[in-house]
Amino acid sequence: MTNTLSLIPSGIDTYRQAVVYMNEDCHICRAEGFSAQARIRIDLSDRWIIATLNVVARGGWLAVDEAALSTSGWEALGAQLGARGHFSHADVPFSASSIRAKAYGRRLDQNSFSAIIQDTLDNRLSDLHLAAFITSCAGDRLSESETVALTRAMQTAGETLDWGGAVVLDKHCVGGLPGNRTTPIVVAIIAAAGQLIPKTSSRAITSPAGTADTMEVMAPVALDADALRKVVELEGGCIVWGGGLNLSPADDHFIRIERPLDFDSTGQMVASVLSKKAAVGATHVLIDMPVGPTAKVRSTEAAAALGVRLKLVGAAIGLNVTLHQSDGSSPVGRGIGPSLEARDVLAVLRRAQEAPLDLRGRALDLAGKLLDLAPGARAGRGRREAEALLDSGAAEAKFLAICTAQGGFREPDAAAHRIEITAGVSGQLIAIDNRLIARIAKLAGAPRQKSAGVRLLARTGDQVIKGQPLYEIHAETPGELAYSAGYAESHSNVLTLSEAAK
Amino acid sequence: MTNTLSLIPSGIDTYRQAVVYMNEDCHICRAEGFSAQARIRIDLSDRWIIATLNVVARGGWLAVDEAALSTSGWEALGAQLGARGHFSHADVPFSASSIRAKAYGRRLDQNSFSAIIQDTLDNRLSDLHLAAFITSCAGDRLSESETVALTRAMQTAGETLDWGGAVVLDKHCVGGLPGNRTTPIVVAIIAAAGQLIPKTSSRAITSPAGTADTMEVMAPVALDADALRKVVELEGGCIVWGGGLNLSPADDHFIRIERPLDFDSTGQMVASVLSKKAAVGATHVLIDMPVGPTAKVRSTEAAAALGVRLKLVGAAIGLNVTLHQSDGSSPVGRGIGPSLEARDVLAVLRRAQEAPLDLRGRALDLAGKLLDLAPGARAGRGRREAEALLDSGAAEAKFLAICTAQGGFREPDAAAHRIEITAGVSGQLIAIDNRLIARIAKLAGAPRQKSAGVRLLARTGDQVIKGQPLYEIHAETPGELAYSAGYAESHSNVLTLSEAAK
Repeated sequence: MTNTLSLIPSGIDTYRQAVVYMNEDCHICRAEGFSAQARIRIDLSDRWIIATLNVVARGGWLAVDEAALSTSGWEALGAQLGARGHFSHADVPFSASSIRAKAYGRRLDQNSFSAIIQDTLDNRLSDLHLAAFITSCAGDRLSESETVALTRAMQTAGETLDWGGAVVLDKHCVGGLPGNRTTPIVVAIIAAAGQLIPKTSSRAITSPAGTADTMEVMAPVALDADALRKVVELEGGCIVWGGGLNLSPADDHFIRIERPLDFDSTGQMVASVLSKKAAVGATHVLIDMPVGPTAKVRSTEAAAALGVRLKLVGAAIGLNVTLHQSDGSSPVGRGIGPSLEARDVLAVLRRAQEAPLDLRGRALDLAGKLLDLAPGARAGRGRREAEALLDSGAAEAKFLAICTAQGGFREPDAAAHRIEITAGVSGQLIAIDNRLIARIAKLAGAPRQKSAGVRLLARTGDQVIKGQPLYEIHAETPGELAYSAGYAESHSNVLTLSEAAK
Repeated sequence: MTNTLSLIPSGIDTYRQAVVYMNEDCHICRAEGFSAQARIRIDLSDRWIIATLNVVARGGWLAVDEAALSTSGWEALGAQLGARGHFSHADVPFSASSIRAKAYGRRLDQNSFSAIIQDTLDNRLSDLHLAAFITSCAGDRLSESETVALTRAMQTAGETLDWGGAVVLDKHCVGGLPGNRTTPIVVAIIAAAGQLIPKTSSRAITSPAGTADTMEVMAPVALDADALRKVVELEGGCIVWGGGLNLSPADDHFIRIERPLDFDSTGQMVASVLSKKAAVGATHVLIDMPVGPTAKVRSTEAAAALGVRLKLVGAAIGLNVTLHQSDGSSPVGRGIGPSLEARDVLAVLRRAQEAPLDLRGRALDLAGKLLDLAPGARAGRGRREAEALLDSGAAEAKFLAICTAQGGFREPDAAAHRIEITAGVSGQLIAIDNRLIARIAKLAGAPRQKSAGVRLLARTGDQVIKGQPLYEIHAETPGELAYSAGYAESHSNVLTLSEAAK
């Protein structure tokens, strides 16, 4: 075959984007008229990928008869060194015209969303197309029926777990509240109560830590569906990374684009949450919505509108959705960042002296509501039951058992580099900006650097004196520490102090 | 300095995206916590760039103490082999939050647009951010005042040519009509009439050829501002590529993203057109809007709305804008693609037998209207004057003189590979789909392959018989010819034939 080249790994990590490197003198580039940024289909026996072309100058590291693949492209194609791949123009993806229509403000139907999801999974759409799709849905640009269609498309593109008709509980937090890491505690309590809760979580999108990031510092989370099933059959619950399964698999492609853009949309958020819940086989879902001026949901009206959308879309796909509004005015616990949050979680489960009371209280509220949801439960008894399971040590034992079943428990690491940020004046701490404190944790390296982040040393309402430490930045490298501290020092509005009247 | 590395060119063409390749064992990656997709600032004496990080595995082509740059990054930094660049985290661009606000549907002010344009020119915004900005403005999502603000931001970010208060004519076509290459003819006529017309044109965004692409097959178009001024002082007119000047320079960044996305927006189109006209120093601008079901403007109502926006924004920035609606139902001339269109242009200027009458008529209409616009002109006399200048050979002579002044005239090349597409039935040719015929020309390689495209062998209204050639596909490579022909053969609705009644 004339349109084949020897495949080699380039060793270039492009962060999950499939890139193919071809020599500028390559005969296929000439015959097919390929130039940089072209989208190229590469077939190797029964597998294929679509990759973006980068052209390597003659005389460089790439031979004329070779094509090198980025790390993610190499893995996706499952290539062996020197295998001959077949190269051709990638077809214009059908769904690109649907994305254009959506960008122009038109409504899309089920078929259009299904095509977008399938082309996303097949990597037919470029990152620019995905950015355009996400932007075209941003804010409130997806209608209810479009959200239902997107949810169905996302769910049915992957697998759905089957629990044989059992009641399956699940919870989700809309996010935006740093340190609000209730999930490991809630799962431990619910499983200790004998209910099923096969919890899958995501990594951070725009926050310093997702539940999967936090859990990962205590136990392996990248389980496949069979391993998940074994853990749940053994212990009643699990806390695993959803991206390691094939449940609503398009979501991770969107997250890859949403993260650098730093935004998502109501419709995509609803579709992301509910498609995963439906795929995991949940029957009853409790959704925690922290409301506050700097949380993701900023007012009770916005929470109510989002709640309506979640309930309606849930009902349309057969999920019983219950909503729970909570206080989203300040971060929860002390730690912000995977390891720092894990230490708060462990302190609560271990009933340690320094356990943050707010995190404990929130976890008990949610676990209680979930226990009340189970068919046959005596309403209003859940919270007391949850408290008993936590205080008796049953939840801690269950959490360790789940970690063991997932591959083994480990203590979270501590960061090598720290700096304290102190109060510039004396006064009462009246506000902590969730977004700014999250940004500082991210600049310090969270969530990629697991032990990086922020540790709060003062809470809203505290009286502090000038020079008193307000929070500590943790980083794994001096460069990140300096970068984050520089940002913190140039933003005096991260924490608001009311100066005492003179 | 510890945060420096030796800079080398990677020889990798990423199509204008600045990418930096660093070794996974590089001490800066470790100290700063850089990982793939991070945005990194590289300083070299008084120049700097922002680049996206790709990480190269140890043992590969990149040494630990080296950083390699993509071709465009290398050029932008003006680096010498082995120079020590300084590496740091790129600041979060201020304008990213404005793009997020726009994606969420909020209105932006002058400062926000100016910041977006400056960050675009400084390459602080990633391609994903630019795709999000373009999508957030798509369709009709920019208000009139936002369009004025964007236009001003785009103009003032670059240079503005000064013609000492003279009347300066200019024309623009909204596009979407394949083969409608009137500009070279109009400029030749206007300059032959003794008026000033310093015409800058763009390369194709979503079409098979822009005027700059077409002109480039006949004469150099990449002139700088001094060279442009000399050509216009000598000949009264020019036809050069606007991207080679520093006139509204952000536009080319947007085009780089719009091209693969295959869409733009009303507001951005108005800002793109008028910022360039203002920057070139025009005083009177004629805008041709072809209207047809498959043209860019699909109805007279849409044309009127766009016209109002163009006139109002023009007035706000001090431009006298006149509108001209034309028939946009079918392609103009015979050729679609840079060289094929250039041959039509030359045939008209040379008064050749095979010169397409429709292209000639349109060029005369526009030149006539432009001559009428000039202060002191006797209205209604322009078209006759234009016709006289064309028929006398004065326009041809002026065109050749302009080409000579720009660097020398050359005849367009012909493509090596051709295939005829024939009629499947006998009947009257009642419609040609502008978008589909343009796509076929693009799949054949236009505009990157200059001689690629489509040559129409039948016109709307013709009676054709089964098996008669309808059009010819031209390509520079067999692969592109096969790809385009395959698309043509699977789309029977490119040309519509009404079968004769039996």
